[in-house]
Amino acid sequence: MTTSFPAYQELLARLRRIHVLGTVTGVLGWDEQVNLPPGAAARRGEQMSLLAELAHAEATAPALGAALADCEAAGPVGEAAVVVAAARRDLDRSVKLPADLVAEKARLSSEAYHAWAAARAARDFSAFAPYLEKHLALALREAELLGYGDRPYDLAIDRHDPGLDAARIGALFAELRAGLVPLARRIDERVRAERARGERPVALRGFDVDAQRRVARAVTARLGFDYERGRLDVSLHPFCEGSGDDVRLTTRFDADNPLDSLYSSIHEAGHGMYEQGLPAQHAGTALGVAAGMAVHESQSRLWENQVARSRAFWTWLEPEYRAAFPGPLAGVSVDALHAAVNEVEPGGLIRVDSDEVHYNLHILLRFELEKRLFAGELAVADLPAAWDDLCEELLGRRPAHAGEGVLQDVHWSGGAFGYFPSYTLGNMIAAQLWVAARAALPGLEEDFTRGEFGRLLGWLRETVHAHGRREDAFALTRRATGAELGAGALLAYLQERYGA
Amino acid sequence: MTTSFPAYQELLARLRRIHVLGTVTGVLGWDEQVNLPPGAAARRGEQMSLLAELAHAEATAPALGAALADCEAAGPVGEAAVVVAAARRDLDRSVKLPADLVAEKARLSSEAYHAWAAARAARDFSAFAPYLEKHLALALREAELLGYGDRPYDLAIDRHDPGLDAARIGALFAELRAGLVPLARRIDERVRAERARGERPVALRGFDVDAQRRVARAVTARLGFDYERGRLDVSLHPFCEGSGDDVRLTTRFDADNPLDSLYSSIHEAGHGMYEQGLPAQHAGTALGVAAGMAVHESQSRLWENQVARSRAFWTWLEPEYRAAFPGPLAGVSVDALHAAVNEVEPGGLIRVDSDEVHYNLHILLRFELEKRLFAGELAVADLPAAWDDLCEELLGRRPAHAGEGVLQDVHWSGGAFGYFPSYTLGNMIAAQLWVAARAALPGLEEDFTRGEFGRLLGWLRETVHAHGRREDAFALTRRATGAELGAGALLAYLQERYGA
Repeated sequence: MTTSFPAYQELLARLRRIHVLGTVTGVLGWDEQVNLPPGAAARRGEQMSLLAELAHAEATAPALGAALADCEAAGPVGEAAVVVAAARRDLDRSVKLPADLVAEKARLSSEAYHAWAAARAARDFSAFAPYLEKHLALALREAELLGYGDRPYDLAIDRHDPGLDAARIGALFAELRAGLVPLARRIDERVRAERARGERPVALRGFDVDAQRRVARAVTARLGFDYERGRLDVSLHPFCEGSGDDVRLTTRFDADNPLDSLYSSIHEAGHGMYEQGLPAQHAGTALGVAAGMAVHESQSRLWENQVARSRAFWTWLEPEYRAAFPGPLAGVSVDALHAAVNEVEPGGLIRVDSDEVHYNLHILLRFELEKRLFAGELAVADLPAAWDDLCEELLGRRPAHAGEGVLQDVHWSGGAFGYFPSYTLGNMIAAQLWVAARAALPGLEEDFTRGEFGRLLGWLRETVHAHGRREDAFALTRRATGAELGAGALLAYLQERYGA
Repeated sequence: MTTSFPAYQELLARLRRIHVLGTVTGVLGWDEQVNLPPGAAARRGEQMSLLAELAHAEATAPALGAALADCEAAGPVGEAAVVVAAARRDLDRSVKLPADLVAEKARLSSEAYHAWAAARAARDFSAFAPYLEKHLALALREAELLGYGDRPYDLAIDRHDPGLDAARIGALFAELRAGLVPLARRIDERVRAERARGERPVALRGFDVDAQRRVARAVTARLGFDYERGRLDVSLHPFCEGSGDDVRLTTRFDADNPLDSLYSSIHEAGHGMYEQGLPAQHAGTALGVAAGMAVHESQSRLWENQVARSRAFWTWLEPEYRAAFPGPLAGVSVDALHAAVNEVEPGGLIRVDSDEVHYNLHILLRFELEKRLFAGELAVADLPAAWDDLCEELLGRRPAHAGEGVLQDVHWSGGAFGYFPSYTLGNMIAAQLWVAARAALPGLEEDFTRGEFGRLLGWLRETVHAHGRREDAFALTRRATGAELGAGALLAYLQERYGA
């Protein structure tokens, strides 16, 4: 079968329609976070619900199934085999999930979100527990329907990271835990000792918001985010939406927290550059979409952490940053600025506020608990106690209440199980890519001191972006870095940058 | 048949889907003008084209046709009769127009837009003429297919203003022309005499754009535009998009033209308040949509002109306006400001730049030429000469080239024939509504001097907005004002405000 085989062309056209309809939903989702008038929430819900119904109809269209079956019968090879296999996986999932289950999950997510927000404010897990139980039951029913009845957590993972599973992630995370827990303890001790001596990072206050906006845009453009094919806006929580020629980043601005807007912009631009670098001619097929959330996160973290928290990066940015905020930076040395950028907070209980060192401990905790929940080893009612115990083990501190413990994250209210691991997998992949990039590109950090990032982006384009979803995160890392995905590079990186 | 008749409920559900899908297209259209990255135009085209296809499928769904036929057979009365009749009209039009004709018109419009822009820049009508000919041929074919073969221009008008036709508009416009041409000449003479004496409106320069934005928002909110259910943004050309709980206005800002941002915001807010005032429970049916473009335009013009160019309005706004722009308004008296707001430019050749007095002469010109084109009395090739002759007759001046003559408007490049008349019909309706409102609401202009507009908006809600599309523009005007639609009120209003 060649790619000009009529059924294959029909398949591509059908996949294209699904993709385009997905991008419409994407624009409306972005608009909801960025622009929607307060009174228009119900209206937007109705629009999204109709789009979901139309998307389901496209994704299960008989003409799609017929074209796919013809392609399979013809024996696809090469790129076509990748496209056909992924299309089969997606079609089977769409067909096997009854519309009422999909609708029930959407309805539950909406209710559970509000219940979660209220429960978090009240620090009362029991008010959220029934919703979590329902979500869990739905996830198990989904797994049953899709042939994952004996390993439902693998399905949850596979939804975000095709090809990955709990066993392989568990082995990696065990390796990480063995090295990271003692490393974090040593770093915590060092930081506590510094604080005891009165050494504290400088407070950055009174940074003009318009200037922050200009800096965020200029820095992300300099890194390589293409504003001819993208935007930067404001939302409550930063995110990146879109693909191809229309990729939209958001951030938020606080005069007394300028590093938040800068680093969230860079993080989202890392996601955005991946989307802009995927091969446009394959948009909507497995050849033209991201490999999964773990690889996606490796791109955002690499630019945010390995690149933009480096001394080399600040050697370039410092004069421009100082020129943008002359008042608040008067008397702040480049050393003090760099220390603020790499500040570590021992035993921070909130994941989204935590630093590079502690962040992954938060993820190990969530992965472990999700695994036990899905295996039936842990009841929802026992989750808060399990959380607190594991938190003490990993982070060395117990939450004082559920609001800074088991209720802190939004994910479970949307039934987004299996998503957390991709954050730490992304950090591991980023660390390995960073080693490989420096080996492949001698003098790379010298580039950064001159504000030049093109060689790194070019390498990522070629090594990661151009490959779409041909490989899973393990295979991609192996090819791109010449080594199996492991915890070593991340541990070495954290030791080098933060080591006591 | 009661409204609980199952087929009627099915009809309503089907109409709702069409409406919701239309609002999705609306958000994407707004986004295209306000947010779209420059490189994403082709992507947006693909999204819009798929949405158009899905909308066509919804609009011609067999289940819709079956429900409608059942309703018709059951003999709908009252509100249901209005809904059923409008649904029949729309369904017939959707079904009778072949998809290839619809696609051809969309493709032609896209090509013709670029050809028009280039031709206008080159002042070369012959480069645009072939596209106009094709659009005209398509419009005639459409008319043939829809049973308007003997009166194709009526169909063009009916598309924007259901129920109206060229004969009735022609009679009204003849009445207007008889009064307006001599009135405009007298006003021109007075203005020319003032200019000869060195009296010129004050130049307004250096108005801070952020302050203009705050003023535009504050003024439109005060008039009654609900920002809980709407927004104000920036685009190249001001427009209003949306309905119900999500109505979006745009304007543009120029430091040296502050009245443009203010009056375009007020104009669009007039459209927006109409959309916000339509009965939400009937959204998407003839009971819940605007009566047509003429009535729509009456709302924007009433607020922009009758209200916001009045002395009473400026009595309220002046102190706030002065506080927003203390520098550039130093030494500018309220009289000078009011004169600038009501500046008249004798013989202006460009419609979109023209004042209240001359604007309608531009519309009379376009209506006359469209009528002759559709009747086959005027060939496209002879259009420029006909334009120039009629322009001299009506405005007293000949264009020096096609760029300030026949090529000035974008409408024909999109095949939007029959749209121009609604501007002037809107002005006529606005003038009559204004007379009726002042009679119904004693001391109305006193309200304005205190920045109170609620009584007027309430009257418009009750008299115009609440009625949706139950009546055509003639019937609505008759009921709302107690008089047949005519030119008298507009002529009297212009005489009173600008008369020599």
